[in-house]
Amino acid sequence: MSDRKEFRDLAEPAAAHEAIASLDLTPDPESVALRDARGRVLAERIDARTDVPGFDRASMDGYAVRARDTFGADEADPVELDLVGAVHAGAEPDVTVDPGTCVEVSTGAVMPDGADAVVMVERTDVVATEEDAGDTTRIAFRTSVAPGDHVMVAGADIAAGARALGPGTRLTPREIGLLSALGVDEVPVRGRPTVGIVSTGDELVRPGDELNPDRGEIYDVNSTTIAAGVEEAGGEPVLYPHAGDDYAEMERLLREAADECDLVLSSGSTSASAVDVIYRVTEERGELLLHGVSVKPGKPMLIGRLDRADGRESAYVGLPGYPVSALTIFRTFVAPAIRKAAGLPEPRTATVEGRMALGERYGEGRLRFMPVGLLDLGDAGGTVDAGDPGLPLVYPVDKGSGATTSLVEADGVVAVDADTDYLDAGESVPVQLFSPDVRPPTLLGVGEDDPALNRLLDRLANPRYLPVGSQEGLRRLRDGVPDVAVVAGPTDREVDGVDLGTWTREWGLVVPEGNPRDVSELADLVGRDLRFVNRSRDSGLRRSLDDALESLAAERGEPRADLTDRIDGYGITVRAFESPVRAVMGGKADAGLALRETADRLGCGFVALGTQSVVVRAAADRADRDAVTALADELDGLDTILEGMSGYGT
Amino acid sequence: MSDRKEFRDLAEPAAAHEAIASLDLTPDPESVALRDARGRVLAERIDARTDVPGFDRASMDGYAVRARDTFGADEADPVELDLVGAVHAGAEPDVTVDPGTCVEVSTGAVMPDGADAVVMVERTDVVATEEDAGDTTRIAFRTSVAPGDHVMVAGADIAAGARALGPGTRLTPREIGLLSALGVDEVPVRGRPTVGIVSTGDELVRPGDELNPDRGEIYDVNSTTIAAGVEEAGGEPVLYPHAGDDYAEMERLLREAADECDLVLSSGSTSASAVDVIYRVTEERGELLLHGVSVKPGKPMLIGRLDRADGRESAYVGLPGYPVSALTIFRTFVAPAIRKAAGLPEPRTATVEGRMALGERYGEGRLRFMPVGLLDLGDAGGTVDAGDPGLPLVYPVDKGSGATTSLVEADGVVAVDADTDYLDAGESVPVQLFSPDVRPPTLLGVGEDDPALNRLLDRLANPRYLPVGSQEGLRRLRDGVPDVAVVAGPTDREVDGVDLGTWTREWGLVVPEGNPRDVSELADLVGRDLRFVNRSRDSGLRRSLDDALESLAAERGEPRADLTDRIDGYGITVRAFESPVRAVMGGKADAGLALRETADRLGCGFVALGTQSVVVRAAADRADRDAVTALADELDGLDTILEGMSGYGT
Repeated sequence: MSDRKEFRDLAEPAAAHEAIASLDLTPDPESVALRDARGRVLAERIDARTDVPGFDRASMDGYAVRARDTFGADEADPVELDLVGAVHAGAEPDVTVDPGTCVEVSTGAVMPDGADAVVMVERTDVVATEEDAGDTTRIAFRTSVAPGDHVMVAGADIAAGARALGPGTRLTPREIGLLSALGVDEVPVRGRPTVGIVSTGDELVRPGDELNPDRGEIYDVNSTTIAAGVEEAGGEPVLYPHAGDDYAEMERLLREAADECDLVLSSGSTSASAVDVIYRVTEERGELLLHGVSVKPGKPMLIGRLDRADGRESAYVGLPGYPVSALTIFRTFVAPAIRKAAGLPEPRTATVEGRMALGERYGEGRLRFMPVGLLDLGDAGGTVDAGDPGLPLVYPVDKGSGATTSLVEADGVVAVDADTDYLDAGESVPVQLFSPDVRPPTLLGVGEDDPALNRLLDRLANPRYLPVGSQEGLRRLRDGVPDVAVVAGPTDREVDGVDLGTWTREWGLVVPEGNPRDVSELADLVGRDLRFVNRSRDSGLRRSLDDALESLAAERGEPRADLTDRIDGYGITVRAFESPVRAVMGGKADAGLALRETADRLGCGFVALGTQSVVVRAAADRADRDAVTALADELDGLDTILEGMSGYGT
Repeated sequence: MSDRKEFRDLAEPAAAHEAIASLDLTPDPESVALRDARGRVLAERIDARTDVPGFDRASMDGYAVRARDTFGADEADPVELDLVGAVHAGAEPDVTVDPGTCVEVSTGAVMPDGADAVVMVERTDVVATEEDAGDTTRIAFRTSVAPGDHVMVAGADIAAGARALGPGTRLTPREIGLLSALGVDEVPVRGRPTVGIVSTGDELVRPGDELNPDRGEIYDVNSTTIAAGVEEAGGEPVLYPHAGDDYAEMERLLREAADECDLVLSSGSTSASAVDVIYRVTEERGELLLHGVSVKPGKPMLIGRLDRADGRESAYVGLPGYPVSALTIFRTFVAPAIRKAAGLPEPRTATVEGRMALGERYGEGRLRFMPVGLLDLGDAGGTVDAGDPGLPLVYPVDKGSGATTSLVEADGVVAVDADTDYLDAGESVPVQLFSPDVRPPTLLGVGEDDPALNRLLDRLANPRYLPVGSQEGLRRLRDGVPDVAVVAGPTDREVDGVDLGTWTREWGLVVPEGNPRDVSELADLVGRDLRFVNRSRDSGLRRSLDDALESLAAERGEPRADLTDRIDGYGITVRAFESPVRAVMGGKADAGLALRETADRLGCGFVALGTQSVVVRAAADRADRDAVTALADELDGLDTILEGMSGYGT
């Protein structure tokens, strides 16, 4: 194995920024059609090649005159001139304005020779037509004009040779407008850096392909996420075929990507064998600048340069494997380098200021990018929360390594310095958004998972809902972060709030279609040889089941634990309302704890055990927020939401 | 002609917004590949179709164990277990963990049957290899673990049936990451509204085609500008072929566009004949809702609906003809409707707060969208300016109707209410940017136009320079808006400031190549039958010429006016430093007022008359701004800027 640079001395984050800044990702400039130029960056200055307008141009509908002929004219004493012709926009004048004459012109027309001003039609009258004045129409002018009035002289807008747009200008619709006026249809722009993305790992499968969970296969999240991030930063992503854990192939792909791209990224290649490949490739043809950074997450980051077949160099960055870590490191260290190479500025919406909703302790002595969620209280800052009420609430999201849902449950990261060991509730913190397009949600709900709730959420603009279960939902409501908690079944926690609405749902046992084992009551689980699948303790369904078991135990005069010990699978719990139904459908269980709605919808049998209520409870100090009243309004139309959902009622 | 709705009663702007809101531009949803989904908006909720992960997954490198076997283990008293196999990521386990045994697992591996926890490798030691323990490798565990430790159970990230993303979610890299994890490769998204753009006017030529200025032809600015604006708002522009002033063709195109698009825009179709076509088309198959709005610019706006061949409807909006007016009305009334139809939110950077640099009077009694430039002083608010020093300066840009350069000299508009007749200097105003991507310049310069200055500006980040001439530049510097003025030649205005740098340029008469008329001195202009082309009074070159003529007149003992009266073309002035050279090259003049640099570069003859200095002067209170010191730094390297420029020196 090569001489490892890792961990002997972890680099400071600033050194990682410097290492990446030392790499040149800048591609050659290119030429694009004007219609494709929006968002691109000018590679060079554009001077006007011709005068705009290219001729002296009437800027009003009216009459072209010699200004001198109108001197002295006013409403009381108009001047009359002979009309000798007309010039319309897009036509070449075939008439000259001699003293005492005028020519009708429309806006945009070429000024006829002899004329030096235009009188707008509203200040004139036709005083005599050809019929009553022998071959001549005469026009009365009720105002005088000065030379140049209502005329845009050639080059007045922009003259040939003048500087129109500077290099580095980002092309928005208005610049495209000016380029159109100049007749430019091919635009010299900065190239977009091409960024090769190499993924390794035998377990990775591209989205759309079949997955075999028995082999531990998972979808490749990082390649598509980072590709989208590259695009957003102004680069052009190139996805290389997946190398599995074939290290010879990985080596070949890295070389190929280096030859074809300005930057090569790999992710999850932090296993010892994969890192060996990186060392081999960078040593043979390039240089490894840095391995290991004092940052969490991102410690195993690699930075290097790779020689290209064409004699130039490609940059290389190895990203961590977990999606939130990969996106965080990409956003912090790589995206700015891509933007710089593309000539694009840092987006103004990349960072928002927020205030900590809760205190957060940290003491690992290295920079931490803490994933956080945001809640934009906007209209009402809340009374129980400390800090500047104008700022959105910030709360840590820690779902453990590797959870892809953290990508959407967090909105960005707060960089916590190595020497900061505590963030106080109410403290202002800058949140680096995962993407400049991220919009913090306006409503945060927590609690039970429920299919009717899902429909309700569909009707709201930009809500976030964390299905943490009823008990945990109440706990979080009490701690003051979310706006609402959704609670199903009995609870042993009393949390004040305002109930916005409630519905009921029928619960019981899901069994295979046709109920082959002939399950008919709860007692069957205990007495018979049935494989059962349960919901976890945080679920309201589990609460109702346990209460029912308690009653059964009381009936029989034995402790509940004796009953549950005899239920095969009582301890096997799954996460969501559909999970037990799927376990039964997949033949992994004979019965499961479920809702009638889900059993019916998925075509299974169902044994009813009871009905429980689901309550949507708002924090008292948030009940008047627009987003909360919008939720309450939707709850008023609950009947339409519940339509067609079996076992549901109000 | 139809019964005209215009001007009889101008609609209020709110009525125009309502009329557009009453039109339905929403296209059908569509399905796109995940790799093309960035920036799109989900048309429906996405639920997880499978558990993620799809199996119980080791989340650390280490050993899979039965947690119970480790109970009691610590550093002092490790527990030893037999190693019975290994499972790597992407492989199906072929081993079971029985009591007293363990299995090596890598991060991401499927948990083997029997195991319920993972001990990370760092807390273990290999105590006996096969060699010294007879066929068995034994592992010592220096810690105990609980069931579930370092295991992500199936569905723990997100379970099948759970709500993943709601309808209306805009897809940024993180949502694309979650969709990848779910294996979604085709995404149901909101359609982009198609927007047909129909342009009319005999004078319009598409950029890239040949222009005939004698016929008064100009490039079509609005079609490309509005097309870029449509794209930016999330629509798909469709440019229809140009109809000239053929009204039958215009009518056919409008009907075709209505059949093919969700919205049809036309611009500049405000001539009586063009409006007649709109009336005819909307009356025959549709409805005209509104013609004429009480707003400046935008009074002639038209709003209507057009029946489509497929039985549905298309919306129609007629925009004003001048580019800034068209873009302003598009931005204010049309872009929000396109965004709404596309499901996109109003961009957060659409509006910035600024403060008026000067007072502005207005009293027309209708809403005015005043085009304004912005100057982001950022680091130093300036001392002479009133208002909140943290806000960028806002100054009106009024170049007169139809100037396309206003598109880039203004950054947006301030909406001035019908009943506001004065905006005070220092007053805070919201500026609606022409586009959310517009970045206000960080440096504002005004004054003389000069080729060396153009090179200097190329080296700065995001400067704005208005070539208003030396005299006007000094006047504006005194009024306190710009950072710097560039002054060439003699001036009669003294304005305090800090001179940042200076260079000299040789001026004189440009003549055709080879100097066919044998011009040798200034007096030739007066005495001989030469057609001359002059620069306007705002130019520093003109000042030097007039001073030279003054001296010549004094030499001859006659008034200067007698001399200038005898110069054919003394009163014919052109706008920029290249303009006289082009006039001479085009045979329109025998001599022109020019720089040696320009005459040399364009291959003309040149008769030197003198050398003048060009001074870059900063406002005293702006000299310490970062952008100004960056300019001063570049001026230190003036030698390299002037390299190869004939007639230039320091």
